[in-house]
Amino acid sequence: MGKQKMILDKLARTVQVRNLLLRQALAECLGTLILVMFGCGAVAQVVLSGGTHGMFLTVNLAFGFAATLGILVCGQVSGGHLNPAVTFAACLLGRERWRKFPMYFLFQTIGAFFGASIIYAMYYDALVSYPGSFNMTGPNHTAGIFATYPAEHLSIFNGFFDQLIGTAALIVCILAIVDPYNNPIPQGLEAFTVGFVVLVIGLAMGFNSGYAVNPARDFGPRLFTAMAGWGGGVFTVSSGWFLVPIFVPFIGTIIGVLVYQLMVGFHVEGEVRDRKSSEQENVRLTNHVPNVNMRIISVTICCGDP
Amino acid sequence: MGKQKMILDKLARTVQVRNLLLRQALAECLGTLILVMFGCGAVAQVVLSGGTHGMFLTVNLAFGFAATLGILVCGQVSGGHLNPAVTFAACLLGRERWRKFPMYFLFQTIGAFFGASIIYAMYYDALVSYPGSFNMTGPNHTAGIFATYPAEHLSIFNGFFDQLIGTAALIVCILAIVDPYNNPIPQGLEAFTVGFVVLVIGLAMGFNSGYAVNPARDFGPRLFTAMAGWGGGVFTVSSGWFLVPIFVPFIGTIIGVLVYQLMVGFHVEGEVRDRKSSEQENVRLTNHVPNVNMRIISVTICCGDP
Amino acid sequence: MGKQKMILDKLARTVQVRNLLLRQALAECLGTLILVMFGCGAVAQVVLSGGTHGMFLTVNLAFGFAATLGILVCGQVSGGHLNPAVTFAACLLGRERWRKFPMYFLFQTIGAFFGASIIYAMYYDALVSYPGSFNMTGPNHTAGIFATYPAEHLSIFNGFFDQLIGTAALIVCILAIVDPYNNPIPQGLEAFTVGFVVLVIGLAMGFNSGYAVNPARDFGPRLFTAMAGWGGGVFTVSSGWFLVPIFVPFIGTIIGVLVYQLMVGFHVEGEVRDRKSSEQENVRLTNHVPNVNMRIISVTICCGDP
Amino acid sequence: MGKQKMILDKLARTVQVRNLLLRQALAECLGTLILVMFGCGAVAQVVLSGGTHGMFLTVNLAFGFAATLGILVCGQVSGGHLNPAVTFAACLLGRERWRKFPMYFLFQTIGAFFGASIIYAMYYDALVSYPGSFNMTGPNHTAGIFATYPAEHLSIFNGFFDQLIGTAALIVCILAIVDPYNNPIPQGLEAFTVGFVVLVIGLAMGFNSGYAVNPARDFGPRLFTAMAGWGGGVFTVSSGWFLVPIFVPFIGTIIGVLVYQLMVGFHVEGEVRDRKSSEQENVRLTNHVPNVNMRIISVTICCGDP
Repeated sequence: MGKQKMILDKLARTVQVRNLLLRQALAECLGTLILVMFGCGAVAQVVLSGGTHGMFLTVNLAFGFAATLGILVCGQVSGGHLNPAVTFAACLLGRERWRKFPMYFLFQTIGAFFGASIIYAMYYDALVSYPGSFNMTGPNHTAGIFATYPAEHLSIFNGFFDQLIGTAALIVCILAIVDPYNNPIPQGLEAFTVGFVVLVIGLAMGFNSGYAVNPARDFGPRLFTAMAGWGGGVFTVSSGWFLVPIFVPFIGTIIGVLVYQLMVGFHVEGEVRDRKSSEQENVRLTNHVPNVNMRIISVTICCGDP
Repeated sequence: MGKQKMILDKLARTVQVRNLLLRQALAECLGTLILVMFGCGAVAQVVLSGGTHGMFLTVNLAFGFAATLGILVCGQVSGGHLNPAVTFAACLLGRERWRKFPMYFLFQTIGAFFGASIIYAMYYDALVSYPGSFNMTGPNHTAGIFATYPAEHLSIFNGFFDQLIGTAALIVCILAIVDPYNNPIPQGLEAFTVGFVVLVIGLAMGFNSGYAVNPARDFGPRLFTAMAGWGGGVFTVSSGWFLVPIFVPFIGTIIGVLVYQLMVGFHVEGEVRDRKSSEQENVRLTNHVPNVNMRIISVTICCGDP
Repeated sequence: MGKQKMILDKLARTVQVRNLLLRQALAECLGTLILVMFGCGAVAQVVLSGGTHGMFLTVNLAFGFAATLGILVCGQVSGGHLNPAVTFAACLLGRERWRKFPMYFLFQTIGAFFGASIIYAMYYDALVSYPGSFNMTGPNHTAGIFATYPAEHLSIFNGFFDQLIGTAALIVCILAIVDPYNNPIPQGLEAFTVGFVVLVIGLAMGFNSGYAVNPARDFGPRLFTAMAGWGGGVFTVSSGWFLVPIFVPFIGTIIGVLVYQLMVGFHVEGEVRDRKSSEQENVRLTNHVPNVNMRIISVTICCGDP
Repeated sequence: MGKQKMILDKLARTVQVRNLLLRQALAECLGTLILVMFGCGAVAQVVLSGGTHGMFLTVNLAFGFAATLGILVCGQVSGGHLNPAVTFAACLLGRERWRKFPMYFLFQTIGAFFGASIIYAMYYDALVSYPGSFNMTGPNHTAGIFATYPAEHLSIFNGFFDQLIGTAALIVCILAIVDPYNNPIPQGLEAFTVGFVVLVIGLAMGFNSGYAVNPARDFGPRLFTAMAGWGGGVFTVSSGWFLVPIFVPFIGTIIGVLVYQLMVGFHVEGEVRDRKSSEQENVRLTNHVPNVNMRIISVTICCGDP
């Protein structure tokens, strides 16, 4: 046992990444991989089994709790965003440095890409024996297992609004959950609460286009399908729908941040600030609050100049 | 980054609402908006997809966890009532001032109105392409997405009783959850527990008329539908059913408060009082209990004369 | 507001029950009422809606979380048993006095009776307009909404075993949850955990006879149905099945207690005892453990001689 | 009451097992029994009721929360592995001694065997009256209630990959949950979180072969079916499929451990180590961390030489 410990220790020292940003990006990559692996896995199970092994509710549950698990896997290291829109919100509010944004975006997309590829490999036999395997349109299309496509009734304008609202709702709820001045979720339960947010968004906003609300979750798997047999049509179908879940979530984020901050956030913050300046009891508070702040949305100790 | 912080700070100071009651009303508005947006969104998803993207259970889950999220968004600021009946219960028990009641009622209804309008906009294309779009009766009616309507079997008398029981059950459970002398739910989990109450009410009491048990949740969206294309029929249908979910919940609240207080509440309270008066150890208790009390049902520091 | 507080205070003093056992029995009554009201309500919703407003899963969810809510309502006062079998287990292990057992049994049954009657009143119109209203057998029978009846395939011997296993499983899990020497569930979450136990029992053991595993939950509603229109047949059908869910759960309880204590309980307890006697550090432990013990299974400060 | 306590105490002393490893093995046995009893019970309920009393989702929920309950029953004593693959992971990382592995494996398999036998006895009547009772193949086969069998589309190579991915995903999530340096799940909630992991695996990875991802859960019940009437065919069907869920999970465990440690684990560990060696504040940390570590994955105080 002593020897085993030694080997493990040596291994740990050898592979340890000392650059914090890279470490965080790696963690985000694994977290997003888990989100997409379980989420798209549930879609695959429903589609390929023809509904005997699941339904839309199981997809909602899977994406919700997959978000919980993804956050648990990487939350302490990288903040557990799993979504460039969440990273964007954190940057907008000054809780993360902007230079984190492209790095996180990249690694979240990579994680989503590999999450999709694992599901592809796992259900390869089922996919091949499925009537509509590698079809991108028609009643038995399978491209929707990995990336999102708009329902027939959806115009591009309504689709724009769909992603806008979905992301804004997500961001409002997440901001409330991680706001250090607002609700005190017990430590370690933010991941669960975010999971319920994703679940509820799926229950209420999933009919139009499959609630991507996450550029990485949609683009990574879409890129994979383009390479794995569905072809470039995944980008051209529905007059370039793929751009909507990439860009609109960021606009939705801005709206979500504004709504939450204007209706709740700024006031609770302001109240704390007012109380502090009048009572001068800032010692205890400033020691306590940043700690809470770090819990999920960020680890702000960052490399580079301030 | 320093500049961004400064801009945010200046913005926060500019828009900060310093009147506590208005701030609380705004928070209630956002919380109820979230409740109705997710709840009615789930109904819309089930109805408009013809059942492929949900079922009655998903509506129950969505309303339950939407209540959780709504409470999380505004709980620390306004108490997270989301429901005039809950505000009424808090006032009845002297935990909130009566002047809060009309203000909360108004803003909860406004929030519900906008929650419904968001879902309307989000599913506009789906609604238009749905066979029974803007029908108020018949097999494909869509008015039920937003407000509640009685099932065919329901007489007005039974409907009265339905809302009475539903609200009383809600209030008994909520009082138990927030009673500082009774069960110690871990801090921050009351929102989840209330969500489960709403879920269970939907599972058990949803067949008669869709378990409004909340005047704001029902009236706000109904008003919206009247304006958005369904017409004044939403008020006249079923011989004025719309009055039932507005007024009966308050009677149900009185019964719920009485049942809980007579069977549990007064006794645990009395026990604490007896112990206090006999042991004179009131110092620690009075410091501790109001704090617990504030957690969800109220922030009683109120403007105005006492 | 000052006046309102005074009235409330006076009211509280007037109605306050000072006998602890009666107070606990009242609380158990309300808790069991909530369990049966929500649980049977979910069955009613599924049966009377013909499956459009629920399915067997929603019944399982409703009974599970109804148990959670029932425990939350009365847990701090009475221990939140809601089930004579649980009271029996607590008495067997010396955690409750035996004189509590008949009192709890009686009031739990009364609570279940009224829970069923509330659902009857709430769904009266739906019941009357249902094809098989007040039938006790046949494809559209409705007696099963309130009490349990064996499936066609079930012999009385297998039914005996069904209730035995179900109750033993329930008791093993509950003992693990409330064992002060075993797993430390966060305070206040035992109610949730017990809810999941009831949920899982319903998911896995509900096909034979509807998993009563609770004499009060089954007998109270059955008595109600006998009086409310289904007639004495509810007792005679299936050669006296009604006796099985009354008596077998107690035998199951004995087996559950033995299994848990022999495989886990006695050893962890013994380990603590061994450590205590060897280290003589009993001061802190004896102050801490009874407190934990009280959390759900009992408030042992009881009236009467010791 | 005094006398009852005395009898209980004497009984406890008589049966108390003082060998820690045996005690832990017994606890694992009961925990795995609960996992398999509830999990396979849910499958039995779905299959034997022909889908009226459940669906694939209820099986997923049952296995998930059954894992939670199994861990709660034995977690404090044995670590709550319930799965030889988890024990294997703990040994690989030096958190458990290797000599525990065969003992746990054996008793977990025994527990799974008895869990299956309880379900067999409980649903004996239903099984006998089911059209395909004791069939091992064909549309109404019942062997799948107890052990897992590959779907028709699955080749042995893809089945290998299926179990590999499933177990790796399980282990990555469990390692994140119990990593003392990573996410701080509130004490006592690891069991719930693991339950959600199992639930999500079922939702996303259950279509190929029923997500065994646990050698004991699969082999124990399979052995039982071989003895209880289905015959030796349970081992020979699908060209020796039964070997896949026995051996592949261990390979999946190695991959899961590597993925988690390389992408997250080693870095957080290393960070703590770096901080410790530079600040020399190891006193508080070494007192705190092993305590956290013990919470679920192990009680490492073990018999035998170090």
